[in-house]
Order: sequence, then structure tokens, then C-alpha cells
Amino acid sequence: MTPFVIKVGGGAGVNLETVAADVAALVEAGRPVVLVHGTSAAADALAERAGVPVRQLVSPSGHVSRHTNPEMLEIYVAAAAGQVNKRLVAMLQGLGCNAVGLSGVDGRLLLARRKAAIRAVENGRQRVVRDDYTGKLLSANGDLLRMLLAAGYTPVIAPLALGQQAERLNVDGDRAAALIAGSLQASHLIILSNVPGLLADFPDEASLVSHVPRSQLDQAMNLAQGRMKKKVLAAREALEAGVPTVILADSRVPQPVQTALAGAGTWITEMSEFATDARLGSNM
Amino acid sequence: MTPFVIKVGGGAGVNLETVAADVAALVEAGRPVVLVHGTSAAADALAERAGVPVRQLVSPSGHVSRHTNPEMLEIYVAAAAGQVNKRLVAMLQGLGCNAVGLSGVDGRLLLARRKAAIRAVENGRQRVVRDDYTGKLLSANGDLLRMLLAAGYTPVIAPLALGQQAERLNVDGDRAAALIAGSLQASHLIILSNVPGLLADFPDEASLVSHVPRSQLDQAMNLAQGRMKKKVLAAREALEAGVPTVILADSRVPQPVQTALAGAGTWITEMSEFATDARLGSNM
Repeated sequence: MTPFVIKVGGGAGVNLETVAADVAALVEAGRPVVLVHGTSAAADALAERAGVPVRQLVSPSGHVSRHTNPEMLEIYVAAAAGQVNKRLVAMLQGLGCNAVGLSGVDGRLLLARRKAAIRAVENGRQRVVRDDYTGKLLSANGDLLRMLLAAGYTPVIAPLALGQQAERLNVDGDRAAALIAGSLQASHLIILSNVPGLLADFPDEASLVSHVPRSQLDQAMNLAQGRMKKKVLAAREALEAGVPTVILADSRVPQPVQTALAGAGTWITEMSEFATDARLGSNM
Repeated sequence: MTPFVIKVGGGAGVNLETVAADVAALVEAGRPVVLVHGTSAAADALAERAGVPVRQLVSPSGHVSRHTNPEMLEIYVAAAAGQVNKRLVAMLQGLGCNAVGLSGVDGRLLLARRKAAIRAVENGRQRVVRDDYTGKLLSANGDLLRMLLAAGYTPVIAPLALGQQAERLNVDGDRAAALIAGSLQASHLIILSNVPGLLADFPDEASLVSHVPRSQLDQAMNLAQGRMKKKVLAAREALEAGVPTVILADSRVPQPVQTALAGAGTWITEMSEFATDARLGSNM
């Protein structure tokens, strides 16, 4: 069977237990699954506890990211590859699913190029940040994942990547999941977070856009607010890499993966057999 | 070639860079290597930074261990599977060695039984500690390691184990390395720390015992002080599991693994072809 790649967000309110239960059920039913997780709330909590300031970088285009200076990198690695990854692995093991936790630095699973100089806007002025350890993803090692899947293991992946100078780099989890889904030619990429999907009228959850064909991704990108922009971008990258179906769905419901597969959330697909959602409109 | 299992301690003063360089050189020369690492100094530093008190448990027989209550467990997991493991993996990757970091919870690599009630001595009185997450090792998954080694990866292992209730457990790194060496039928287990080996007259480093045949392990155990007792115990377990040679050696020299293999440190061997070190004596 072609694998599913499932991304579970690291934000506050995300329920890892229900996602783990659905992953274990899928694997038990014979579906190979790769689980990619976020880490933001855990990294913020550990940073606060350790007295490391959490700072955001705002790009000139308005994109917000974590300022990962060397001190924050140590916290980020501890939270991502340590706390969240091993909590998820132990949770899955407790459900009988033989999970193996990895980060992108392991086995060159995710290679990235460090953004050595980042333009950031602060108090209306641009400055160049040179102490950041964030990476632009380059490639994924699908062979390592295929070997683990073939041997019956379920890979659980923390959003770190290996830089070209062997740096450990913070990378975006949604786009990492898209790259991995492409490398495995997964049939579905399911991105779960603490929103129901793409909202036409953010934050009105009743304004969910149920379907976006690939041809209307530009319109979807225009609707997306904040973190959702990265998810739509990840969906586009997955489709371009040959993944036919991406679902953006809610992690806060009782069976989040099963609910998404049953049709909930925003389905972003290669094919246009669905009627286009009227909310995508023509006024954009 | 039969693999080497190398354990590098996590104490202050241990030089990870030189160990990583030796591991990369061995792998480059065609020797399969599994590297197991400690975590004590990194866990202490993160705990101090996060304001989590570092407490020791002293057993009635005088053995000292880290009190790993739920709060300390989160720190321990973060430091072991996050910080130290990924630092070593990235270091090896920078040397061209395709390392994969795992902890014992991953793929059921190390299974253990939680010590749910531990007798500890405090101010001369015994009490029972029930909130500790330390484990007694039961088994290692050699298949997972063999699969990774056969595919050209170098496993790097953090000293955590999976408990019978899917708990994450703190386990002794030396004994974990011995269990792994046995499961792989390694030809050598090399245990590096910030002492030259077993000392007949601790802490006099000139009193190094150069050879202990298996038949004299009881005498060696009587000589061993503090942490060295665990290393001699690990050596015994490795020999019992079929590993013919265990070397206890110094991590602080320029080429620690090569120096150990050239004959430095304390060699604990199945065979008695060496003259028994006079320091083991007959007065014990």
C-alpha cells in the first residue's frame, strides 16, 4: 500500500493522544504511515522555563518565524527531537505501534541550506539577522524511510534538518512533511492543526473551504491567513512532487485522522472532479 | 566485519569531538560501529537552567543514581535524546559518517522494567521512593541495529529505555552498551570516560590495572570505586553475553578509541593469555 504522511502541529491545543490512536489504527490495518510533528508550544514552554527569550522574526512580506539563535537552537533541539518526539514514540509504542523517532539530521533524512542572513522588520525598520539557524529544505532521504516502513516500523519525525556545514537547523514542519510525502510518493498528506482547515473568512470556522483543486491554489493562498499560508504552500509543494491529495484538517476532534479521511477539512487535490467551492469565488 | 560498540560517557571533561573523529575513521575503514553516549553533564546543566533540582538517590549498598522523577524525566529526555544525541549525530555527519540517532524507546531498541519502588538512604534513614523513572534493562533489539549497519548507517544511541507500560525510562548507559554489544555479538565493547580505566589505588592514575581476565572479575569489582563499579558490572554482562573483549579507557586523550585499541586502559577479556596484572593481587 502507498504510505500516508501525517503532520500533527505543535501548537497549544493540539491533541497528540487522538492522533497517535488513529495512526496506530491505520498501521494495524496495514497502511504504512510516516508521522511528522511540530514543536512550537513545547519549545516555548522549555524556553520560558530555562529563561531563554522567545523572539519572532517578521519578514518584509509579513511572514513570522521563530528567531533560532544558538541558545534557542539548543532549546528547540531538546524540545523537538527530545521531548515531543519521544513522547509520541512512547505513546505509539503503548498502542502497539512500533514507532521509531528520527529528526532530519539522522541519516541525512532532511537536508537544508541555512539562511545565513535574514531580513527582518522591527519597529518599522529592516535589519539583517545573522545568528539564526533556520533552513530552507533541499531534499529528503526516502530510502531510509522506505527501509524502516518495509521492516514494519512507523517513523516519527522531528522538524530539524542537517545544514551544509553539518549544522542542526530549525525547519518548517509542514513543508518538511510535504517533502517527505513527495519522496515517498505518498497517496495522502494530512496536515492537522488547531483549525478546521482553510477558512474563507478567518477566524469564522463556519467559512471552511472544503475543496481546492490544484488550478485554484493561488486563490487559496490569497485567502490563507498567518500559519495557514505555510500549509497551503506545503500543499502546493506536495502536489508538485506527485502527491495527489493533501488534506488540511482539525486535530481537536475525537478521531482527527479518520475524520479527515472521511471528508472533513480542506481537500487540496490534483484532480478537479469535485465542484469547486464557491467560497474560492472569482472575485480574487 | 563484526561490529564495535563504543560507549562515551556523559560526564564533565569528556571530549565528544575526538571520539566522533575516531568513530568516523573506523567506519571509513569499513568497521561497523554503534556509539552509545551518556548524558549526565548535559542533563545537569539543562536542569539547573530550568530550575529543576538535581537529586541523587543512594541505595543501601551505596550505589548513587539520578533521582528521575517526572519533572527530571522531561529534562533527561530533552538532554539525552535531544541535545547530546543530535550534537553527536551532526558532528559525525560533518565528518562524513552517516549517523542515525536513536534512543531505547525507538523501535523497542531497549526494553526495561521500571523500578517502581526504590530503597534510598537519606540522612542515615531508609525510605522508599515511588516517583522514580529508572529502569532495569531487559533486552535489546539487535535486528534494528543490524538493518541500519547493513545499510551503511552508524547508530548513535541515547540511554533511554521503553518500560512495560510504555514509560520512557532512564537507564545506565554502560549497561545499555553491554546489552547492545551482546545482542550484536560485537568483537569489542569500548567504554570511554574521564578516567584511564580501573585503578587499583583510586584516584592514583598511575595505579591502572591493565588486564582483568574474566576469572578475576570479582577482584576487579572489589577494587572499583564509585562509577567504575557500573563499568566493571557492564563488562561482566558483556562477557557473559559473548563479547570477548571489553576495554575501559580514557576519553580525554587525543585519539581515545585508537589509543584504547592499541592497548591502553583496562582490558577485560574472556581469555587469560595475558599475564594477570599483579595489582589484582591475591590479598582480596
